[in-house]
Amino acid sequence: MRTLEWIPDENVLELIDQRLLPAELVKIRLSSCEQVAEAIRDMAVRGAPAIGVAAAFGMALAACRSEEDSFDGFMKHMRYAADVLVHARPTAVNLAWAVERILEGLNHPGVTRENAFDKVLETAQRMANEDVEVNQRMAKIGAELIPEQATVIHHCNTGALATVDWGTALGVIRMAHEQGKRVHVLVDETRPGLQGARLTAWELSHYGIPYEIITDNAAGYFLQKGMVDVVLFGADRVAANGDLANKIGTYMLALAARENRVPAYAVVPSSTFDLSLSDGTAIPIEERPADEVLQLTWKGRRVAPEEARARNPAFDITPHDLIKAFVTELGLITPPFDEHIPKILQSSAALRRA
Amino acid sequence: MRTLEWIPDENVLELIDQRLLPAELVKIRLSSCEQVAEAIRDMAVRGAPAIGVAAAFGMALAACRSEEDSFDGFMKHMRYAADVLVHARPTAVNLAWAVERILEGLNHPGVTRENAFDKVLETAQRMANEDVEVNQRMAKIGAELIPEQATVIHHCNTGALATVDWGTALGVIRMAHEQGKRVHVLVDETRPGLQGARLTAWELSHYGIPYEIITDNAAGYFLQKGMVDVVLFGADRVAANGDLANKIGTYMLALAARENRVPAYAVVPSSTFDLSLSDGTAIPIEERPADEVLQLTWKGRRVAPEEARARNPAFDITPHDLIKAFVTELGLITPPFDEHIPKILQSSAALRRA
Repeated sequence: MRTLEWIPDENVLELIDQRLLPAELVKIRLSSCEQVAEAIRDMAVRGAPAIGVAAAFGMALAACRSEEDSFDGFMKHMRYAADVLVHARPTAVNLAWAVERILEGLNHPGVTRENAFDKVLETAQRMANEDVEVNQRMAKIGAELIPEQATVIHHCNTGALATVDWGTALGVIRMAHEQGKRVHVLVDETRPGLQGARLTAWELSHYGIPYEIITDNAAGYFLQKGMVDVVLFGADRVAANGDLANKIGTYMLALAARENRVPAYAVVPSSTFDLSLSDGTAIPIEERPADEVLQLTWKGRRVAPEEARARNPAFDITPHDLIKAFVTELGLITPPFDEHIPKILQSSAALRRA
Repeated sequence: MRTLEWIPDENVLELIDQRLLPAELVKIRLSSCEQVAEAIRDMAVRGAPAIGVAAAFGMALAACRSEEDSFDGFMKHMRYAADVLVHARPTAVNLAWAVERILEGLNHPGVTRENAFDKVLETAQRMANEDVEVNQRMAKIGAELIPEQATVIHHCNTGALATVDWGTALGVIRMAHEQGKRVHVLVDETRPGLQGARLTAWELSHYGIPYEIITDNAAGYFLQKGMVDVVLFGADRVAANGDLANKIGTYMLALAARENRVPAYAVVPSSTFDLSLSDGTAIPIEERPADEVLQLTWKGRRVAPEEARARNPAFDITPHDLIKAFVTELGLITPPFDEHIPKILQSSAALRRA
């Protein structure tokens, strides 16, 4: 089962509504790029690789539904769709990367108004398949870093749900488990959206991998006690110097890992690198609605006073010196990246700047 | 209004049930040392200074209800009560400190079976009053560390609710605010018990001090952005070298503060120092029930899968080198402490070891 999938008969995008997990496994169907943008914004689908591919299919929906007769009119519509999708969320570079790749695929002599939708859908499908292949390649590379018996702290959700299938950091854990290694996962609950307690726990239960949920602020305790062998997370954008934006809390986790000499690895497909940014200070950080922090009930009671306000930055910047290495489909790499990362990434910022 | 108070007419201890805040302000009445121990264990009353004084009143309840005719029998009963109270929670040293002080007060020639209860109650009352005085003294000393315009990150609840009245770290913020300083508080929600989002937010609302709730894992973001001037917290026990045990998450917060050159101060009455322990590794860390982590509803839905398990250490150890200074009623101090801390503290471990 894939997190998101094109339904050919109806030309719609079907995806798991991650807002309802783990209580309910419900799929929703989207038929316009606006609906895809809204699903990304409201985090029905989340995870940098997943929203990248969702945006690619969002472009396919735009192509499919376009009523423009001329190729120029069609391209104008596609650029509008690109704009809608890229602006759904600002931090993960995968949105821009995916949308740009679709637009580039249309910029070829053989593409006509008649075959344009087929071309777009074909590219989106290829990206979906590549995502799974890339994840499995990263998983094999990353699994070599996991000891035969290991306790791993994992932040947020980076599993099948954060990708098309298999996962990035969680994919490494899954591969190590399938290789017979005895992996125990301490699952950061990952406030405010609780992707760890909701989604990663749900996935690990399905895979039969032992885990315990911890509050994010307890990671330091276990690291300090010497109970952790490896810290793993994904990223939403990696700058040229290796600074990365990832789910809020990654920075404090990586700091505590370094302080206790526990290696922290970022498991990141090359589509998440943005070499147009020299360092992390230029990565835009999304601030999400306060109700994600405040709409909490603990032991049956509302937590915050009614009048309370909250700040809700969704990401933070982890400086490169806190990351031991980046696990990518190209291998284990460290900054500077230029020689390792394909050309397409170097131009991925163009659309975003446009 | 005090967090806990002796009701003379009925010889019971009345305290605010902090499990119900901020939704409901309910007071409960306790009439035995066992009930006090249970209220401490289940965190109806919490905060190191508050549970110390609650234990002292628990001893008064034991003295009041004792049916022993002989002084020896009475003292045996009191030692039983001391044992019940000291073992309610392991980490805060204030429990042992308070109970030992009551027992020492009974070890004087003038104390008889007839006046023993009066002596105990008098000592407990004195400790309650001293707690408020000590807090206000610390608040004045600590307020000097707060700039005229300041953003402060505060962890857990250290306010009136964590003490008899006024508070420790939050008492410093309150004093700075009353002195006309423009203090803005970023309130760590403080998972799992959410004492920040529930109790500190509630207190700050009452005092009219502006605040915003943040998830614990977001503190690093604000520190890294240069938006924070001071980090403040209390402690449940301070070892001779300055290592301290405090609410889980303090360690990661203090690490992020040091990394970003923001001073972190612990605001701690001398009753919380335990000079019998050379460093933090000897401080016992309580692990509380997993349901505190798991019984969470977010946006109306249960968070963790039904089968999920959790780890729940309630405290962590912050090494002394992450603390810029300790604000105590004796002044601003740094380790080694021996010359600053009164003699009584040096023997406070005796009962605990017995």
